[in-house]
Amino acid sequence: MHPSNSTIRDLLTHYREIALLAKVKALIDWDMNVNLPPKAAEGRARQTAHLSELITRLWLDAKFRKNLEKASELKDLSFEEKAIVRNLTIGGKYYFSVPKELIVEKDKVSGEAFMAWKEAKEKNDFSIFLPFFKELLRLDQVIAGHLRYKDHVYDALLDMFEPELTVKKAKTAFAAIKPELVQLVAHIKQAKEYTSTSNLVDGSVIYPKAQQDLLNRALMEKMGFDFQAGRIDVSPHPFTTTLDHFDIRVTTMHDERDFRTSYTATMHETGHALYEQGGSVDYVDTPLEGGVSYGIHEALSRFWENMVGRSPAFLSHMTPVFKEFYPEQLSSLTIKEAARLVNLVKPSLIRIEADEVTYSLHIILRFEIEQELFEGKIQPEDAPEVWRAKSQEYFGIVPEKDSEGVLQDVHWSYGAFGYFPSYALGNLYGAQLLHSLKKEIKFDTELEKGNLLPIKGWLDENVHRFGSLYMPDELIKKATGEKLNPQYFIDYLKDKYTHLYEL
Amino acid sequence: MHPSNSTIRDLLTHYREIALLAKVKALIDWDMNVNLPPKAAEGRARQTAHLSELITRLWLDAKFRKNLEKASELKDLSFEEKAIVRNLTIGGKYYFSVPKELIVEKDKVSGEAFMAWKEAKEKNDFSIFLPFFKELLRLDQVIAGHLRYKDHVYDALLDMFEPELTVKKAKTAFAAIKPELVQLVAHIKQAKEYTSTSNLVDGSVIYPKAQQDLLNRALMEKMGFDFQAGRIDVSPHPFTTTLDHFDIRVTTMHDERDFRTSYTATMHETGHALYEQGGSVDYVDTPLEGGVSYGIHEALSRFWENMVGRSPAFLSHMTPVFKEFYPEQLSSLTIKEAARLVNLVKPSLIRIEADEVTYSLHIILRFEIEQELFEGKIQPEDAPEVWRAKSQEYFGIVPEKDSEGVLQDVHWSYGAFGYFPSYALGNLYGAQLLHSLKKEIKFDTELEKGNLLPIKGWLDENVHRFGSLYMPDELIKKATGEKLNPQYFIDYLKDKYTHLYEL
Repeated sequence: MHPSNSTIRDLLTHYREIALLAKVKALIDWDMNVNLPPKAAEGRARQTAHLSELITRLWLDAKFRKNLEKASELKDLSFEEKAIVRNLTIGGKYYFSVPKELIVEKDKVSGEAFMAWKEAKEKNDFSIFLPFFKELLRLDQVIAGHLRYKDHVYDALLDMFEPELTVKKAKTAFAAIKPELVQLVAHIKQAKEYTSTSNLVDGSVIYPKAQQDLLNRALMEKMGFDFQAGRIDVSPHPFTTTLDHFDIRVTTMHDERDFRTSYTATMHETGHALYEQGGSVDYVDTPLEGGVSYGIHEALSRFWENMVGRSPAFLSHMTPVFKEFYPEQLSSLTIKEAARLVNLVKPSLIRIEADEVTYSLHIILRFEIEQELFEGKIQPEDAPEVWRAKSQEYFGIVPEKDSEGVLQDVHWSYGAFGYFPSYALGNLYGAQLLHSLKKEIKFDTELEKGNLLPIKGWLDENVHRFGSLYMPDELIKKATGEKLNPQYFIDYLKDKYTHLYEL
Repeated sequence: MHPSNSTIRDLLTHYREIALLAKVKALIDWDMNVNLPPKAAEGRARQTAHLSELITRLWLDAKFRKNLEKASELKDLSFEEKAIVRNLTIGGKYYFSVPKELIVEKDKVSGEAFMAWKEAKEKNDFSIFLPFFKELLRLDQVIAGHLRYKDHVYDALLDMFEPELTVKKAKTAFAAIKPELVQLVAHIKQAKEYTSTSNLVDGSVIYPKAQQDLLNRALMEKMGFDFQAGRIDVSPHPFTTTLDHFDIRVTTMHDERDFRTSYTATMHETGHALYEQGGSVDYVDTPLEGGVSYGIHEALSRFWENMVGRSPAFLSHMTPVFKEFYPEQLSSLTIKEAARLVNLVKPSLIRIEADEVTYSLHIILRFEIEQELFEGKIQPEDAPEVWRAKSQEYFGIVPEKDSEGVLQDVHWSYGAFGYFPSYALGNLYGAQLLHSLKKEIKFDTELEKGNLLPIKGWLDENVHRFGSLYMPDELIKKATGEKLNPQYFIDYLKDKYTHLYEL
């Protein structure tokens, strides 16, 4: 990029250093998850901390901040130049607004809280975590004050993970889907297919890792992942990271007793990867590079995982492919059984094991509790009880242990309040994109043939290539012609599961 | 480390940043060789260049240089504190002495020269490389002037790769071994075993990579490599790198048609790795961390590769192990044949394919030519002819093409004059260490049993743990009781090959 405005050029030159170091840090983190020898963790942490320190210094550079302030008041900027200024303002907000001592204090408390959370979860004793939970909530109240907000203190936190997201916006979206989801779950639980089991995934059949790897690569090739500009590896928790525009790395996991785990994880992560690979080359090392938000990223990963990977149409194409890679294991698999197996809806206590229908309810539960905590409507000590009550209401089941309830997720242990809602927003964005895509592409027909490239092409054209040029709301408007509309998600689910479960 | 002197403490605090960034850069380089997707090279180069720039800035920091000058004049420093000051002076010498424009110019010419060298080698036409060769030699003359030297301009370059190495010292050492090596080669060429071949390594037998990997790991376990604090991977050119004290990474290569390639490469690299793993934990992120020089590092890697890995005693232990990993391929292998196969001496034109006996002659040839070039005794355009003459004299063969002669190595293409001699010094240091070690350990008896840990233990105690505390000469004196004595190397080779080839 060669902006005509010299202040913007100076900003880009300075930001380039931040981008380069952030990418180096991404490699360090990738390697930590994929390759690190056990004894190396402490040393690696020193290196990571130092890079974070260097990146912080760059954000706080006085001349850079002055230039950014100057740029914010410039008229006659191009659309791209305005987006650069906006993204730098968003990217630097935390560094600019929150006093460094407070950042250090939160880091310190988070470290201790994480240890307490681990112990609390192991011993199933919320009281061990409670004092740290209280302190983290208190700190985030103060941090939110520094970050500023208009209506709700919680808005300041939501905005850190999903720019421009507010309590009001999330509440409206979630209010539209919650009753529908609760009702759909209740219906599904009455269906015959809901309870039947399968010996293919009961642990008696083994799917060797080497075969899973081969299938994953074949799947990614179908999706249009460019292996000349990326790789796939294995890590305990699957993730995707950008080491540079032409170096996008996916990790997946294996369960040798269940072929579905690696299949869905790989499609999910490759969805993230295609977003990054599809970005404009012009944006490399600028504030416009990479996906715009957690919400849009989850929209794309869940799109590929659920709307493609779990669709009966694509599974009709994949069933013979599964059999090709697992000829003995899956000799009896039918298309219908494949569709049922990867779409089993089962209200469960644990979010990360949740299916497509109940997943959003897990998120809404957390969103509501976070919001009420920050508004003081409930107290931290009440969280376990509120969790149980909502669990009964949404899933019809109640966790017997807090380790399967309020203590299950790692996020609160390091004070990541405001993170969860972006996950559920992703589902809504995804269904809306699907609706638009279907107007131009014979979706099911292509999926039945295994042709994923037209779908990737549509996403490249309407989403991927823009990187962070548009804010999430603008992007969705541009790609689908209207603002976020949760009804598409409900329609999608109802249509799919009415057929699948013959409701 | 907690030095009592406050200037030293300040130096260590500043150097810690250099060390951390250098380790991050080591990870980037490792990943580049092991994992990089094809299209990612250009982007990765930007990141590497930026880290180099940050490291250069740290070396040139004014306050740091002032502190270092102050520290150089301090009395009453401890031995360790003196070593810190010395190593910082050595480490910073290039940055402090050579004007930045000259560094940039050499980088630029090196890049162009490398491309010209590639073309020249491909087309077997030295004239394409000659103008760049001349310019690189000229630049290094100027650089040497900035670095300062006492007797020979070439001393300044030798010293960059092997601290305190001089023309005088290298000449004395090489003069002692050259005639003996030439004579030994001539003798071996008359032996019966010299010409006989084997179907085991003629390309007709396949040694699968997966089995090579298992054998390599077993071998490294025997050597005492700590897999909790390191790993082994595969790259086109084997190397070893330190990402941190507890993260030492070895790479090896496979030749599926020759089981010896991976065996010797793995032992060589693990020799480097044990030096780094064996360093004192107190030295982490200080100027005392890591091996002291290329020469000592090569001493250890060649010690394990040749004096252990190629010794008839260890091969008597390894023969049944080879057969265990390659049961069908090596069913007919005898101990005697194993010893012959990994010790075939064959004067060849190519250094990197050279055996233990001729290897040092390849280095001496290069050392002599470099020295004469810098002393003006020969001109750059004469190098091919001088190469051919020396080749005839040392090996009894003459390269027909310059691509197998003066153009064979990559080093000169980027102006790394002074690098080669450290390779040959390693052989001499290694044999001297072996001589001392044998006084305390029943070397052959342990090797026959496959007990490598006592040998590693001796090296830990006498070499590894000191990191960069002692200069190479001091270290050898401390470990063996005398200064460098090339006779041990000659004795070792004569003894070994007289038996092997029944000379």
